[in-house]
Amino acid sequence: MKQVDELQGEDGSIGPASAAFRAPEGGNAGARPLRLPPNTTLEKFNDFMSAVQEIVGTDNATVVSSDAELQQEDYMEPSKAHDMYYIAEKEYFVSSAVVAPRNVADVQAIMKLCNEFVIPVWPFSIGRNVGYGGSAPRVPGSIGLDMGRNMRKVLEVNEDGAFAVVEPGVTFMDLHNYLVERNLRDKLWIDTPDLGGGSVIGNTIERGVGYTPYGDHWMMHCGMEVVLPDGSLWRSGMGGLPNPKADPNARPEDQAWNETFGLFNYGFGPYNDGIFTQSSLGIVVKMGIWLMVQAGGYQSYMITFPKDSDLHKAIEIIRPLRVGMVLQNVPTMRHILLDAAVMGNRASYKKSPELLTDEELDDIAKKLNLGRWNFYGAVYGPEPVRQVMLQVIKQSFLTIEGAKYFEPQDQPDNLVLQTRHDTLQGIPSTTELRWVDWLPNGSHLFFSPIAKVSGDDAVAQYEVTRKRCEEAKFDFIGTFVIGMREMHHIVCIVFDRKDPDSRRRAHWLIRTLIDDAAERGWGEYRTHLAVMDQIAKTYSFNNNAQLKLNEKIKEALDPKGILSPGKNGVWPKHMNAEDYKVPV
Amino acid sequence: MKQVDELQGEDGSIGPASAAFRAPEGGNAGARPLRLPPNTTLEKFNDFMSAVQEIVGTDNATVVSSDAELQQEDYMEPSKAHDMYYIAEKEYFVSSAVVAPRNVADVQAIMKLCNEFVIPVWPFSIGRNVGYGGSAPRVPGSIGLDMGRNMRKVLEVNEDGAFAVVEPGVTFMDLHNYLVERNLRDKLWIDTPDLGGGSVIGNTIERGVGYTPYGDHWMMHCGMEVVLPDGSLWRSGMGGLPNPKADPNARPEDQAWNETFGLFNYGFGPYNDGIFTQSSLGIVVKMGIWLMVQAGGYQSYMITFPKDSDLHKAIEIIRPLRVGMVLQNVPTMRHILLDAAVMGNRASYKKSPELLTDEELDDIAKKLNLGRWNFYGAVYGPEPVRQVMLQVIKQSFLTIEGAKYFEPQDQPDNLVLQTRHDTLQGIPSTTELRWVDWLPNGSHLFFSPIAKVSGDDAVAQYEVTRKRCEEAKFDFIGTFVIGMREMHHIVCIVFDRKDPDSRRRAHWLIRTLIDDAAERGWGEYRTHLAVMDQIAKTYSFNNNAQLKLNEKIKEALDPKGILSPGKNGVWPKHMNAEDYKVPV
Repeated sequence: MKQVDELQGEDGSIGPASAAFRAPEGGNAGARPLRLPPNTTLEKFNDFMSAVQEIVGTDNATVVSSDAELQQEDYMEPSKAHDMYYIAEKEYFVSSAVVAPRNVADVQAIMKLCNEFVIPVWPFSIGRNVGYGGSAPRVPGSIGLDMGRNMRKVLEVNEDGAFAVVEPGVTFMDLHNYLVERNLRDKLWIDTPDLGGGSVIGNTIERGVGYTPYGDHWMMHCGMEVVLPDGSLWRSGMGGLPNPKADPNARPEDQAWNETFGLFNYGFGPYNDGIFTQSSLGIVVKMGIWLMVQAGGYQSYMITFPKDSDLHKAIEIIRPLRVGMVLQNVPTMRHILLDAAVMGNRASYKKSPELLTDEELDDIAKKLNLGRWNFYGAVYGPEPVRQVMLQVIKQSFLTIEGAKYFEPQDQPDNLVLQTRHDTLQGIPSTTELRWVDWLPNGSHLFFSPIAKVSGDDAVAQYEVTRKRCEEAKFDFIGTFVIGMREMHHIVCIVFDRKDPDSRRRAHWLIRTLIDDAAERGWGEYRTHLAVMDQIAKTYSFNNNAQLKLNEKIKEALDPKGILSPGKNGVWPKHMNAEDYKVPV
Repeated sequence: MKQVDELQGEDGSIGPASAAFRAPEGGNAGARPLRLPPNTTLEKFNDFMSAVQEIVGTDNATVVSSDAELQQEDYMEPSKAHDMYYIAEKEYFVSSAVVAPRNVADVQAIMKLCNEFVIPVWPFSIGRNVGYGGSAPRVPGSIGLDMGRNMRKVLEVNEDGAFAVVEPGVTFMDLHNYLVERNLRDKLWIDTPDLGGGSVIGNTIERGVGYTPYGDHWMMHCGMEVVLPDGSLWRSGMGGLPNPKADPNARPEDQAWNETFGLFNYGFGPYNDGIFTQSSLGIVVKMGIWLMVQAGGYQSYMITFPKDSDLHKAIEIIRPLRVGMVLQNVPTMRHILLDAAVMGNRASYKKSPELLTDEELDDIAKKLNLGRWNFYGAVYGPEPVRQVMLQVIKQSFLTIEGAKYFEPQDQPDNLVLQTRHDTLQGIPSTTELRWVDWLPNGSHLFFSPIAKVSGDDAVAQYEVTRKRCEEAKFDFIGTFVIGMREMHHIVCIVFDRKDPDSRRRAHWLIRTLIDDAAERGWGEYRTHLAVMDQIAKTYSFNNNAQLKLNEKIKEALDPKGILSPGKNGVWPKHMNAEDYKVPV
């Protein structure tokens, strides 16, 4: 490993361990201390900022020097400068500056500049990756690269091929609205996560999911244009093949893509798209995503299960139906409190801070006309197809004593059922954000292990995670999201970000759960900045062979380690995770 | 670029341009000349063979020194030493030796040895990758690594999770038979290509397709175990997470995999699986593949279209049905001659060598009770679901004048329909191999561009490719294989391998078609050894950005460039494609 000294500027810069808050020189009276990039003096940083402002203009490159910038904690207006749901100190995961490229050429120029200055840069799209760190960088003081501010065009919607090509700033809502405005929504659906305000590209390359039959967003992407860490431009798959109609004098990124770019993923030779997901190997500047062709009909439904212990039976019923495609979409089995939290905050159910008891959970379920577990699904297709599917679904689940089947019209006031009715047909919303208000100053953190679709596994994960939540004095809130052959078990840790003890308990909880899970052979699919290293290390087969391969490719593509160092536990050679340990 | 000298042995070895046939010293009277690896003296080669025999035993490491080894040109008993459907001279794409590892440890030891000797190694699974080069290496004289001879276990069939984990030597037939023997076939189906004798792993990592709803084999893989070029072992996705039940004292490859290995592909961090497809970055030694759960019913069918010009209308009908999932599987639109060739050789239809005329093609269609184009599909699901789908399908296609709908019972003697009835439900066969006998000493070469699913594109590709086939004095034989949003147009170039003129014409034809296609923005998804460089170069967007990225990753993972140099056009730094130009 290289010594840190090798990377210090001639003017004697600051090593990573001592990189900390620095007051900017002169001017800026009353400004907050500045978090400089590692190994960067203020002088060098200022030089960098001057240079980057020449690329993007002063309006698009601002130093994070105002306290106000760290007050933005609203999902719809998130801070671009820090983790708005901070579990470490508020000023830990924070950028030194935020730079918003106007176009692909800017992104390329910025990457070249960052290489020249050896200053780390952390791209984000919209900053609504809430629960996993928002727009904040893993390495404090990195340059936040705001891909979503200026680059927000829907570049193509191809009706015949049923795909869209978008820029990083296009949200699920934007894409949906685009279809609605052009009267295409009757034919083409997007797939949306629970919250529709995030970036289509950001969510997809973080391997997020939605709830229609197209719920696996990564599976449904097709074609990428990526700026590599050295600033060069690459198109994946069929994008490698020039379009004869393209203007050969245009810059590469402005050249029309091949007509099969959004139709066929694999192209010729190694299929490299996946290395740009959950990774620090490139910045995705364009991406194709397949749209679902309306299937000829749609019916959403909810099935409620009265007892906590019904989880086992219900999951055993789900497995064969899902793998057999009777359950055509990505359905969810939600714990009562997730639904209850959308409909009211904790104080509306219980005044004392004591944990909710099973009896109280039963009462809440009864009051809300819900079960202790509630299953949300939908069927797609013409009437006779839906009838066949629904018949099997009802027959199967209603063997559980007390289980009840509802369609949206049966519970017009059920906010969750009405929202899921939209979500499961790809209509985005932000309604479900409400469960974050369960506690005052409500913030959340997701613990999300992958589980076998089996009653035993579901119950084991529920028991272990609920027990730990309660040890940390949090009510358990969670959901099982059922994919093709596994479940994403999402435990929603809601904490009060303004209460240091609440933050501390949330942080303890997730660290403890990661170890609990690894001991049992359960691994997480995605995580918050603060625990990326811990989770990466649980994927330890054969002396961390995965991490070693990732580091080798990282070194080859980004030898100076300037792009998203530490992302998902992958560190460049010259940086040491130990130097960037998250304070507990 | 490194000089070749740097890589030469101390004893003064042979540069690539002069690497040629060498007579082995002593013994072996009457043996064929030996094709040594590049930059390798006979002495060094003999040292390598001694060392490799110590790893795998003498029975599993043999020098390719007998003419008999190059006589094996039967699909079921293919040569492991050369391209059995050679378009270059028979002895061009030929290995110096064939080595068959007995297990993963052997593969690792062989890779270490090849690095030590700087001798290129070319893995293959079964050698039935016919049409694309069989088991032969891109670089003449490479060591052929026969992964299929000893490593042929079905390691797991998981009924609940509906997946299998296999070794490289498991063929589609093997896996199907495994299910049949254990009475699992009523529940679980495999997906098979047209010919069922190939390796499940080999076909999948070459991104081959089949014809059920699980036809995209790469999409349906889940979990890989790979020996990297340096001999280290890596497991992808959830395989990175140790199984708590695994024996910690066992060798890594023998440790039980995580229970979610075959259930969830992506794991945590960069998703790297794709880099091991159509690539030279690792040797896949285990792979999970999802099995299709029997859907509750199945009905195959054929629709015939009488006129050559019906292609346009038919493809326009296919597009919305396929993207809308009314066509649930990967159906095919086959040219009359593909079906005719399964039922008889060319001589049975026409005595003279003149090309078949349109009138003669009409006569053949009439005689066989087929159309000029014939569409093979199937519906899956319970009776009412199938009825809905079939009704739409019939209504749509039968608007074409003279189109006719048949089910297998309607044409019990139609060999193709009866075979497709099996193939489309995942029952493997080798029946369709018969079309290769269209000519004497029949061999084939596939030209396989990706096409938009549009009438215009289908007709344009058909016209261009048919015209060129006829210029090369071959009858056009081809099929459109309809994937999720594109078609693999497969042009089957049948030639007489024992006729140098026929070979020369076939080789000319594919080279010409590649350029014709690139000019029009069409790119191939896979190809024969002889034209890999040519196709890789057509993916030339932004100064061959794809190739540059591939070369960078290649250099990082395989700095000595010993694994499959030249595969899909990717060459190691120290080797030059120009030195390995395929003789024309």
